[in-house]
Amino acid sequence: MGDEQTNNQVLIRELPTAELTVDAFELATGPVPEPADGEVLCRTLLLSIDAANRAWMQGATYRGALSAGQVMDGFTLARVEDSKADGISVGDIVECQNGWQDLAVHPARAVSRVELRGELSHHLSVLGVSGLTAYHGLLGVGRPVARQTVVTSAAAGAAGNVAAQIARIVGCRSVGVAGTDEKCRMLVDDLGLDAAINHRSPEFRTELKAACPDGIDVYFDNTGGDILEAALFRMNQGGTIVCCGVVSQYDTSSPAPGPRGVPGLLVTKRLRMEGFIVMDFADGHGAAIEELAGWIDSGELRVLEDPYDGLESAPEALVDLLAGGNVGKRFVRVAS
Amino acid sequence: MGDEQTNNQVLIRELPTAELTVDAFELATGPVPEPADGEVLCRTLLLSIDAANRAWMQGATYRGALSAGQVMDGFTLARVEDSKADGISVGDIVECQNGWQDLAVHPARAVSRVELRGELSHHLSVLGVSGLTAYHGLLGVGRPVARQTVVTSAAAGAAGNVAAQIARIVGCRSVGVAGTDEKCRMLVDDLGLDAAINHRSPEFRTELKAACPDGIDVYFDNTGGDILEAALFRMNQGGTIVCCGVVSQYDTSSPAPGPRGVPGLLVTKRLRMEGFIVMDFADGHGAAIEELAGWIDSGELRVLEDPYDGLESAPEALVDLLAGGNVGKRFVRVAS
Repeated sequence: MGDEQTNNQVLIRELPTAELTVDAFELATGPVPEPADGEVLCRTLLLSIDAANRAWMQGATYRGALSAGQVMDGFTLARVEDSKADGISVGDIVECQNGWQDLAVHPARAVSRVELRGELSHHLSVLGVSGLTAYHGLLGVGRPVARQTVVTSAAAGAAGNVAAQIARIVGCRSVGVAGTDEKCRMLVDDLGLDAAINHRSPEFRTELKAACPDGIDVYFDNTGGDILEAALFRMNQGGTIVCCGVVSQYDTSSPAPGPRGVPGLLVTKRLRMEGFIVMDFADGHGAAIEELAGWIDSGELRVLEDPYDGLESAPEALVDLLAGGNVGKRFVRVAS
Repeated sequence: MGDEQTNNQVLIRELPTAELTVDAFELATGPVPEPADGEVLCRTLLLSIDAANRAWMQGATYRGALSAGQVMDGFTLARVEDSKADGISVGDIVECQNGWQDLAVHPARAVSRVELRGELSHHLSVLGVSGLTAYHGLLGVGRPVARQTVVTSAAAGAAGNVAAQIARIVGCRSVGVAGTDEKCRMLVDDLGLDAAINHRSPEFRTELKAACPDGIDVYFDNTGGDILEAALFRMNQGGTIVCCGVVSQYDTSSPAPGPRGVPGLLVTKRLRMEGFIVMDFADGHGAAIEELAGWIDSGELRVLEDPYDGLESAPEALVDLLAGGNVGKRFVRVAS
C-alpha cells in the first residue's frame, strides 16, 4: 500500500493575468484523504484537459472560480479505491472531478458510475463530455436539416471534430475551420469533411465563402472572435449559431469586443444565437451515448484522441491546448 | 381634380455617409402615375417614420437598398383613388409602401386593405407594424413568464413602448430604458412601468442593476451597442435577448464592434439571442390585432403617438427620430 499513501498534485501557484504558462502551476504532494460515511476515495486514471479549465481561472463562470494555492481542478475518469457509500464498490470506474491529483474523496452523489463500452478513453472523448457537447449542441441546439451547410470552428478540437463528423453523418455539407493546413488536410482526408479552411490564411473570408457556396445554415462556434464574425456575415436567413465555447477569449483577463454584426445581422437575417452547457441536456445523455457508440462501431465516426502521459505533464498539456496544439480530445494518462 | 394632378415628393438627393441630415433630401414634383390593369392608385394619408428607413439608405438589408435620385421609401396608410383591380374599390383604406410622396400605383397584391378599428393612426402605431413588432417580438420570440423581469430599450419608442406595456400587462416586472429623464418619468407615471432608467446617466449600469434586483430574464433590444452590453452582463441564466432593432447602428456607414460578452456570456449563461422580422409572424397578425385592440379598449394599453404635419416635414421627422426625439410612434399626416 506504500505507493497509495502518496497523493501527487499540481497546484495553482499563481492565477494568470494574461496568457497562461506552465509557471502558473507547481508540483506538490498532499495527504491521502480518508472517505467519511457516504463518501468514496477515487484514484485518477485519465485527466481531461479542456479549454474551459482556463476559463475557471478567470473568475466565476457557471461554476466557482479557482484561486492560488488550490489543486487545479479538472474532470477525471477514476477508479474507486475505498468506499463508504452504498451502491459504489471498490474497483468501480466513475466520472468525477478529482482535479489534477492522484486521489480525492467525494460524496457519492458527486461521482457517476461509467458503464464501459470499449476503451476507457472513449468515455472522455466521443462518449464523454466532448462528444456529448458536440451531439447535443449540434442536434439539440443547432438542429440542422439534411443538405444544409454546417460550419464548425476548432473543428480539429475535442468537441469540434465530433460535431463536424455528426454534421456529415446526418447528411449536411460539413465544413471545418482549423488553425493549421495539416489539421485541415486531416479533417478532409481522415474525417471525411466536405471542406476545411485554415483561419490563419490571409484569404480566410474568401475561402470560407468558396467552401459554403450556398451560405451557412448552422455555425457551431467554439472560438468566438474573428471566425465568429466571418461566419456571421455568411449566415443564411433563419440560420442558427450554436455558442459552444470561446477559445479565442479564454486566455485573456478581459473579454474583447464582440463581433461586428451583433445585433444588426441577427435582426436582418433573423438569426438565432444560443449558448448551452452540456449538463442542460443530462436527460438525453443515455440515448446520445448509444447513438455515438453505434457510429463508432459502424466506422462512421472516427475517435480522435491526443493523450499525454503522467500527471506532471498536465500544465504543458493545457498550455499547448490553448495554443491550438491538440488534435482531437486531449487528456493525461495518470494511472492505469 | 386640379390638386390631384400634382404629386409632391421627397427625393433622396444624396445618400448619407455618416449622420443623416435634412440635406440628404430634396422636394420635387412628379407626374401622377396611371394605374394599369390589376393596379391601384393610392393617396398617402399617413406616412410612417421609422428608424429602419435610415437602414435602407445603408445598403441591402432584408430589402433592396435605396439610391440617390429615388423617391424616399416609406410605409404608408393610403386611400385608393383609382382602381383597375378586382376587389379593391375607390375609397378603400390600404397599407402600402407609397414612399415619401402623395401618390403611387401598386399591383393589387402589394396593398392590403385595412379594416378600421377606431382611429386611422392606430393602424400605424399599436395596431400596425410597430405594435405587431412589439407583440410578436416579446410574446413570440422573448416568451417571458409571468413575474419575470423584462427590460426594453428605446422604451419610449414606437415598438418599445408597446413591448414594455405588454410586459406589464402579462404580469412581468417591466423596466424601460430611454434617453431622457422626461421620457423615463412618462414611462413610469403614464405607462405604468415598474421602473425606467436613462441610459445617458453616468450611473446607468448601477441603476439598471438596482432596477432589476432579480436580474433580467428577457431583454427586448431596440438599440444594440452599450445598452445591449449592459443588459448582457445582467441577464439571468437561460434568459432571452430579443433582437428587434439596432438604433445605435443605423446612423453610421460601418457597424461598430459588437458588445463584450458575445459569445462568452451566451455560453456561460445559456442565453438565446434571436432576431426576427415582423413579416415572419404574418399568420398571427389577425389574432395579435384583436388582442392589442382589446387592451386599448380596456385602457390597459395606452396609445403613444408623435405626429408631424405635411409631407415636407418628413426629413426633419426622420432626422429628429434618429436623434431620439420621438415619444411613441412617429408619423407624418400627409392628407386627410
